[in-house]
Amino acid sequence: MPNLAFKIEYDGTNFLGWQIQSQGRTVQSVLEEAIRTILRTETRVTAAGRTDAGVHASGQVVHFKTTLDVNINKLKKSLNGVLPPDLRILDGMEVSQDFHARFSALGRRYIYRIIRRPSAIHRHFAWHVTYPLDLEALRNSCKALIGQHDFTSFCQASSITDGTNCEIRKLDWLEMGDELRLQIEANRFLHHMVRTIVGTAVDIGRGHRSPEAMTDILSAKDRKIAGINAPPHGLCLESILYSFEFDK
Amino acid sequence: MPNLAFKIEYDGTNFLGWQIQSQGRTVQSVLEEAIRTILRTETRVTAAGRTDAGVHASGQVVHFKTTLDVNINKLKKSLNGVLPPDLRILDGMEVSQDFHARFSALGRRYIYRIIRRPSAIHRHFAWHVTYPLDLEALRNSCKALIGQHDFTSFCQASSITDGTNCEIRKLDWLEMGDELRLQIEANRFLHHMVRTIVGTAVDIGRGHRSPEAMTDILSAKDRKIAGINAPPHGLCLESILYSFEFDK
Repeated sequence: MPNLAFKIEYDGTNFLGWQIQSQGRTVQSVLEEAIRTILRTETRVTAAGRTDAGVHASGQVVHFKTTLDVNINKLKKSLNGVLPPDLRILDGMEVSQDFHARFSALGRRYIYRIIRRPSAIHRHFAWHVTYPLDLEALRNSCKALIGQHDFTSFCQASSITDGTNCEIRKLDWLEMGDELRLQIEANRFLHHMVRTIVGTAVDIGRGHRSPEAMTDILSAKDRKIAGINAPPHGLCLESILYSFEFDK
Repeated sequence: MPNLAFKIEYDGTNFLGWQIQSQGRTVQSVLEEAIRTILRTETRVTAAGRTDAGVHASGQVVHFKTTLDVNINKLKKSLNGVLPPDLRILDGMEVSQDFHARFSALGRRYIYRIIRRPSAIHRHFAWHVTYPLDLEALRNSCKALIGQHDFTSFCQASSITDGTNCEIRKLDWLEMGDELRLQIEANRFLHHMVRTIVGTAVDIGRGHRSPEAMTDILSAKDRKIAGINAPPHGLCLESILYSFEFDK
């Protein structure tokens, strides 16, 4: 039974997130409907990361098994032919039987974009922060997060199911013109974790808290002490890391 | 009578271009309506460049005169309060009486974005070219266009009103991951000129014509010899150059 994996990209603006719901347009429901149309069979698709409503992905990975004999490149083209323009298949490959998009992943990379001026063009893809931000304060405060920690303070409490330890391997704030961009890589992320990190860092960057506050927030293990969740539309799931290169 | 200039940004996706029409949503009509709402007076606004339907702008400049005594920063904020999210005022300043957004401009910069893979996120802002492109051929062919030339071959014939000589001062093709980006600056551009240059360059980049063909097309002074117009949504009016810095 072939096990198929696809790298997909979506503009999250008009999706209620990844996961299928009883009502509403989600990435999973639209993708499963496209597979049903092409393969004429009911298929459950599993994603590496369950993105929230409004969050984008340029490198989400999904997998599913099928009893059908399919040509992966033809299937990719056929699916792109029936999928709406805000959801695209970028790559596909047949993977080993034990490959699982979520459990086989060794790491994830997200990007969070902040824009410091009003923008028509970037409005769906960056958080417009109206107050001045101190880039050095953003950078210095976030250093405390790098490494293996208990990230309870940065996680929506009701969604903890599988421990709260994560290892942040890379974390950089880049300045690109009017944009500030957080690049962050970890073995795993808790629910809302990147958005809570950004919300807290922005509190610090605008001077509401000192850069040292991040250390105290981390060790408090209490979500109420961290800042707000930054809005979803600045967030993009950039890539999923496996023991092999997904792209050709 | 104060003369006011504004730098504006728009996502051209849902506009029928800059210029007001008897019907349909244009940037000019939406902007003039916002000014009417705030200043309670009929105002005709002039833009530096009249972009076509679907074309974006991140640095369009407009001006208008008003008999009212206005605070430019307050006016900018009030306008952004009533304008739709796909049209934003970025900056405003009071300019000299003889300033004219179009006639005072010393140059224009456009960007044209090509993306070489299907993309959900970039679909409104880059032309998806499905065939392989030779970047060196794009670069070499376009060198012939730099400098002062008669660009009749790259202009929609029916729209020629004011001569066909333009001086292209800068022209670069950048490779950024899956994106190829044309940056082009000239004293002025003819109607459809950037899009015809891109369409012709892509013909060359995919091997349908030799890089030397660009020279022949230029000297032919015949629009029929050039390639297709690249689609509007890859094009963005990046900035207008004046004898002074527009920004703060």
